[in-house]
Amino acid sequence: MSAIVATPRESTIEVRVRYAETDQMGVVYHANYLVWCEIGRTDLMRQLGTSYADLERDGVGLAVIDASVRYHSAARYDDLIRIRTVLSDVRSRTVTFDYTIENASSGLRLASARTTLATLNKEGKLVAMPADIRKVMEDARS
Amino acid sequence: MSAIVATPRESTIEVRVRYAETDQMGVVYHANYLVWCEIGRTDLMRQLGTSYADLERDGVGLAVIDASVRYHSAARYDDLIRIRTVLSDVRSRTVTFDYTIENASSGLRLASARTTLATLNKEGKLVAMPADIRKVMEDARS
Amino acid sequence: MSAIVATPRESTIEVRVRYAETDQMGVVYHANYLVWCEIGRTDLMRQLGTSYADLERDGVGLAVIDASVRYHSAARYDDLIRIRTVLSDVRSRTVTFDYTIENASSGLRLASARTTLATLNKEGKLVAMPADIRKVMEDARS
Amino acid sequence: MSAIVATPRESTIEVRVRYAETDQMGVVYHANYLVWCEIGRTDLMRQLGTSYADLERDGVGLAVIDASVRYHSAARYDDLIRIRTVLSDVRSRTVTFDYTIENASSGLRLASARTTLATLNKEGKLVAMPADIRKVMEDARS
Repeated sequence: MSAIVATPRESTIEVRVRYAETDQMGVVYHANYLVWCEIGRTDLMRQLGTSYADLERDGVGLAVIDASVRYHSAARYDDLIRIRTVLSDVRSRTVTFDYTIENASSGLRLASARTTLATLNKEGKLVAMPADIRKVMEDARS
Repeated sequence: MSAIVATPRESTIEVRVRYAETDQMGVVYHANYLVWCEIGRTDLMRQLGTSYADLERDGVGLAVIDASVRYHSAARYDDLIRIRTVLSDVRSRTVTFDYTIENASSGLRLASARTTLATLNKEGKLVAMPADIRKVMEDARS
Repeated sequence: MSAIVATPRESTIEVRVRYAETDQMGVVYHANYLVWCEIGRTDLMRQLGTSYADLERDGVGLAVIDASVRYHSAARYDDLIRIRTVLSDVRSRTVTFDYTIENASSGLRLASARTTLATLNKEGKLVAMPADIRKVMEDARS
Repeated sequence: MSAIVATPRESTIEVRVRYAETDQMGVVYHANYLVWCEIGRTDLMRQLGTSYADLERDGVGLAVIDASVRYHSAARYDDLIRIRTVLSDVRSRTVTFDYTIENASSGLRLASARTTLATLNKEGKLVAMPADIRKVMEDARS
């Protein structure tokens, strides 16, 4: 009988809101949620054993080609934020991540987001995702 | 006979890519396009005679509740970027802006974006947009 | 005999380099080190029992009036960074923090920094630091 | 008689404060002044005929090795900011820029800053500045 390997299907990582991330409305500036998403997918990929840094050393970049964020409630300075990331779609040249961003203390949902990334070579051309990485990602798809 | 007032229906503003906006892929980090969108809608509102700073002094904030960006081509350091902004929808408590982001030298389209903003009072509660501002925005709608 | 209370004289906190923090030179953009310093002093103040968020709720802000950074070696994407912060000087209206920023894996020193902050009221005027906070800070001075 | 060539000894460039640059104290976050300095020195170098982008294409990078900022007064959202940059020192492997940052409307001085940059090759090693660029910079020194 084969061993059952638990594949991480979701990354959960926490960050504390930096003063630099707030704006004069007293809440986190909306563009910074995309930075948090990047932290989430970086962590998910690290769990899958394919760090983003490794990918780049192999000459393959993952570029965001589509991003959307729906903002539900505001994050504030010094809040502890939980970023939950899943891999929702894997195709030959793109991969899609879904994110739920919550206040880690209250559990309140702050934002939902989705980004699609394309595999690019060093010249910025779309290329097929390396087969081994695609396999890992497909296995991790939620 | 009534006077015909030319209402600006589109803002066009240019920014030069800052080194700080690039990432190690050698292109502009994707979250920064949302900052450029903010520059575009700020400029459009200034043309309409309702600066965002004025709004805030009146106790009304505009908070982004939904944002989406489709990335077509990369922006690079020192590129001159053109941001074209139109007001695509005005409702009682929200307003939607559409953006086209281009390389100002080549005309190449770099990204398309849309953001919806909600009118909030100082306590962060959704409120109706002040009637005069809504009127101005409806007249400017593309 | 009086109890001996161990006062934290140094904060040590780690952050992982975000993709957003890199620039096209392939290293962390220099201005981001000041953000890391802010994370260090926030953590030191939290340990002292006077969170920066609390201070603001009391109507007192701490504004950076002087900052200097000496860069020794580059930080790169995904590196784990250690920020060590000490309180080096406390005066009636200013407080000075010193920082050492290191690669947490290799121990290599990346940067040394110093910032001086002034106590401001809500109108942005220099005011004396609240006596209890000054006492706490003086006790923690390195 | 030799021709007299007017060498630009100072760059003056203006930027408008972005919402993204503010923090919850209602003023521009202090680290962003270093970004403005970068805009100033980029502009000065462009005037000298040696764009920073060109330098990089030649395999030479300029890395900030020392930065200091003294903050005099706060910049606020939508303010028009004037950045005045001069080249204050040129050595074989480093160049130093001095900056005065002002409110363009009132003329009020907001900050004074200085950065020293070192010439690095693609491997991140200190190298001598290309002779022609050093010559241009020495002629422009204030």
